[in-house]
Amino acid sequence: MKIIESWQEVQALSLKWKKEGLKVAFVPTMGALHEGHLTLLREGKRLGDKLILSIYVNPKQFGPNEDLSKYPRTKEADFKLAEDCNVDVIFYPSDKAIYPDGYQTNIEVTETTKGLCGEKRPGHFRGVTTVVLKLFNIVQPDVAIFGEKDFQQLVVIKTMVRDLNLPIKIVGLPTVRGPDGLAMSSRNRYLSKDERQAALSISKSLQVAKEMVKSGEADFAKIIAAVTKTINSTNLLKIDYIKICDPETLVELTKIKPSARILIAAFAGKTRLIDNYEL
Amino acid sequence: MKIIESWQEVQALSLKWKKEGLKVAFVPTMGALHEGHLTLLREGKRLGDKLILSIYVNPKQFGPNEDLSKYPRTKEADFKLAEDCNVDVIFYPSDKAIYPDGYQTNIEVTETTKGLCGEKRPGHFRGVTTVVLKLFNIVQPDVAIFGEKDFQQLVVIKTMVRDLNLPIKIVGLPTVRGPDGLAMSSRNRYLSKDERQAALSISKSLQVAKEMVKSGEADFAKIIAAVTKTINSTNLLKIDYIKICDPETLVELTKIKPSARILIAAFAGKTRLIDNYEL
Repeated sequence: MKIIESWQEVQALSLKWKKEGLKVAFVPTMGALHEGHLTLLREGKRLGDKLILSIYVNPKQFGPNEDLSKYPRTKEADFKLAEDCNVDVIFYPSDKAIYPDGYQTNIEVTETTKGLCGEKRPGHFRGVTTVVLKLFNIVQPDVAIFGEKDFQQLVVIKTMVRDLNLPIKIVGLPTVRGPDGLAMSSRNRYLSKDERQAALSISKSLQVAKEMVKSGEADFAKIIAAVTKTINSTNLLKIDYIKICDPETLVELTKIKPSARILIAAFAGKTRLIDNYEL
Repeated sequence: MKIIESWQEVQALSLKWKKEGLKVAFVPTMGALHEGHLTLLREGKRLGDKLILSIYVNPKQFGPNEDLSKYPRTKEADFKLAEDCNVDVIFYPSDKAIYPDGYQTNIEVTETTKGLCGEKRPGHFRGVTTVVLKLFNIVQPDVAIFGEKDFQQLVVIKTMVRDLNLPIKIVGLPTVRGPDGLAMSSRNRYLSKDERQAALSISKSLQVAKEMVKSGEADFAKIIAAVTKTINSTNLLKIDYIKICDPETLVELTKIKPSARILIAAFAGKTRLIDNYEL
């Protein structure tokens, strides 16, 4: 496994591999790797001849009052986990390499970024699409793998790839959960014991919604009321949003359609958690 | 020479060529080809093993009161000229292929687009960078060739390519002029005989600026006054801007530095003409 800081070197290596007819798979991350990431890496290894992992905490996708400075950085552990997943290259760039002096280009996806986290975290998705496009251009992957936990991010990236005619297949994998149902997230490390316990209500509430739809409930107001009640059963969570949306456009739905998605964001203390289910 | 309307087909062909080790050169145009474009094509043939020309009048780079609908379209003549330049593929897409329903992604270059035409034509460069990035992703060129007549466009595209880590070499070629000095432009077709005669003052005025710098003049206010006077010697031109700028950042200069660039935009009737010189 090679650890490369220079984007020029990663790009040259990937272009060389592709000329040799090898298929390049890519998993972009912010590090603090957990089982969710490892699932993406294992799928990457299966889909590509070569597997590139990037670890970069992208300042452009954090708001001014968000957790950029305290975002978990676990470099040595990440490298070990990556090696166990047979990663071929870790791209591990500096801020200076990604955003050199005079940097001035942004990617804007205007519609799928409008609601949900896009509304609550202004500028977040501009930061995501900008860095992901840069990473795609550096890594030149044939396939890139993302988790469905960040469902809006996955939709926004699919939108960008389609709109910009990129020859890259985007694969989304189901959210990996702990045995108690909590969606894996690097931010779970922030949670106190009590907060972690409370956070279980999020996946529980999604399960409630799913059961209601299964048993024929079609009134979205009733579903969202039940989800709200489940989450508010603990007083340690603060709901940021609960929405049921079209899975491709993320437009809010008023009645059920196949693969409708329920999406939630909630604060446990200062930690913002997100989760979603297909209904 | 193949004429291809499908972007998927062009992309697949270019990727195949690149896997075979061939170098792909690209000249993006809006058609209405003239000697300036042909110079780019000849250089493309020299620089690449395969040469792709795109002809697409991009609606996103025209303002609401600009000349989109009357922009010259000379398809048959263009195809003939391209064939004479040994173009391998003309990419000739429809609006629907470039901006399908649900299209929603824009590229913003924030600094080099600020002044000059960027200030006078709001949204113009967002349209240019968006379509050029799409065309780059479709055509997958190793090298792309642009004319210096659209000097700000060339700088903006170089900025985008650098910022987005694209593995594409951008080549700028000197403006091609008629024997009377007028910069070649598809929009020259709009000019009446009198307007065309008046338009000669633009290149003449740039020549005046160059001579002044050569003979040691360092006061930019004096140079711009002389340029203004030359252009206003005919009453058929209306100055849009005259600026002396850094050739890389396009920041306005107050004193001379190597390769400082003087840039002009002026209206001849309804026709907006631009030109520029290295001082």
